[in-house]
Amino acid sequence: MRPVSEGVVWEATGLTRERRWAGTGLRGATIWMTGLPASGKSTLAAAVVERLVEMGRPAYRLDGDNLRHGLNGDLGFDPAGRDENVRRAGEVARLMADAGLIVVVSLISPYADARAAARAIHENDGLPFVEVWVSTPVEECERRDPKGLYARARRGELTGMTGVDDPYEPPAAPDIEVRPGRDGLAADVDRVVAALRERGVVPAG
Amino acid sequence: MRPVSEGVVWEATGLTRERRWAGTGLRGATIWMTGLPASGKSTLAAAVVERLVEMGRPAYRLDGDNLRHGLNGDLGFDPAGRDENVRRAGEVARLMADAGLIVVVSLISPYADARAAARAIHENDGLPFVEVWVSTPVEECERRDPKGLYARARRGELTGMTGVDDPYEPPAAPDIEVRPGRDGLAADVDRVVAALRERGVVPAG
Repeated sequence: MRPVSEGVVWEATGLTRERRWAGTGLRGATIWMTGLPASGKSTLAAAVVERLVEMGRPAYRLDGDNLRHGLNGDLGFDPAGRDENVRRAGEVARLMADAGLIVVVSLISPYADARAAARAIHENDGLPFVEVWVSTPVEECERRDPKGLYARARRGELTGMTGVDDPYEPPAAPDIEVRPGRDGLAADVDRVVAALRERGVVPAG
Repeated sequence: MRPVSEGVVWEATGLTRERRWAGTGLRGATIWMTGLPASGKSTLAAAVVERLVEMGRPAYRLDGDNLRHGLNGDLGFDPAGRDENVRRAGEVARLMADAGLIVVVSLISPYADARAAARAIHENDGLPFVEVWVSTPVEECERRDPKGLYARARRGELTGMTGVDDPYEPPAAPDIEVRPGRDGLAADVDRVVAALRERGVVPAG
């Protein structure tokens, strides 16, 4: 499944995760927010990070667009580029969660198989993974369109745009489904934090 | 310099680094350990992480061999594969340091240009970067050879091995040069921690 470079021996020196976490009061996990462009993932992710930091929990947002300015700046938007984009985000989230951070990934991640792989590398490594489907319908995303991407795609200036000419595969069994604007942002954040509580990542209320 | 995927807009929603760090008592930085295979990078890196965790500072080791089991498992050992390996490690270290971790990278990182690029993305982003050259001579590395890699390379079973048939470019101006075995591991760790103190990453002793 996961590729391993030839001739590379796993380096096992050092503290266990348990000792690192116990020594610094951390407890890592990944919250994976998937949804169409302009569905509200980034807004929700930022609000979750803010709430967690207010609670004194080290949290960090991995934003798909920002990753494409650095780590994933070499990738395109063809299916292989998208899969690699999601694969790398999943690997980085796993490392950060292992380090003890609560990682909040906001990434379109349109393909179910790639999301399942991100979950698998966490769960196989004993790290909590919470999939949040931000389920704003495409018509509403297109009406919001804060970055003008749908308009550009409709004019033919962008191709391979998820929701326009590239598919989005909705999660079959997300841990949480959030429809921004229905219950309000604070209530949406509450639900994500509750999922972390259930998994022992943040202390009970 | 750094590639940026087409049509991607930087997502700026959310807490500033200052608020994230202040809210959780963190302060990030990257310690970059470079040196020949079997020079002692992993041992030093593990000891630095252990010391920092004892001090209550969230620290995390990014080990080159372990990265090749996950994020960088798709890469080979040709010059392009090595450069991409170091590029990704640098980007991940920068993200983790931005999150507030003290990241300890142990990575052969044989080429000076690739190391300089890793430094640049940190310093351009206001994040401390401490280059540690683990300067064990090749003859001694080959005598130690705990993973049997030099022996395999000498038998022709591995090609592109740094120190055997691929060059190592020593740092011209490392922040710290460590020669394992000369002063003892604890003293070597002290010097790395002192460099973090000088940069305000850990409190004055």
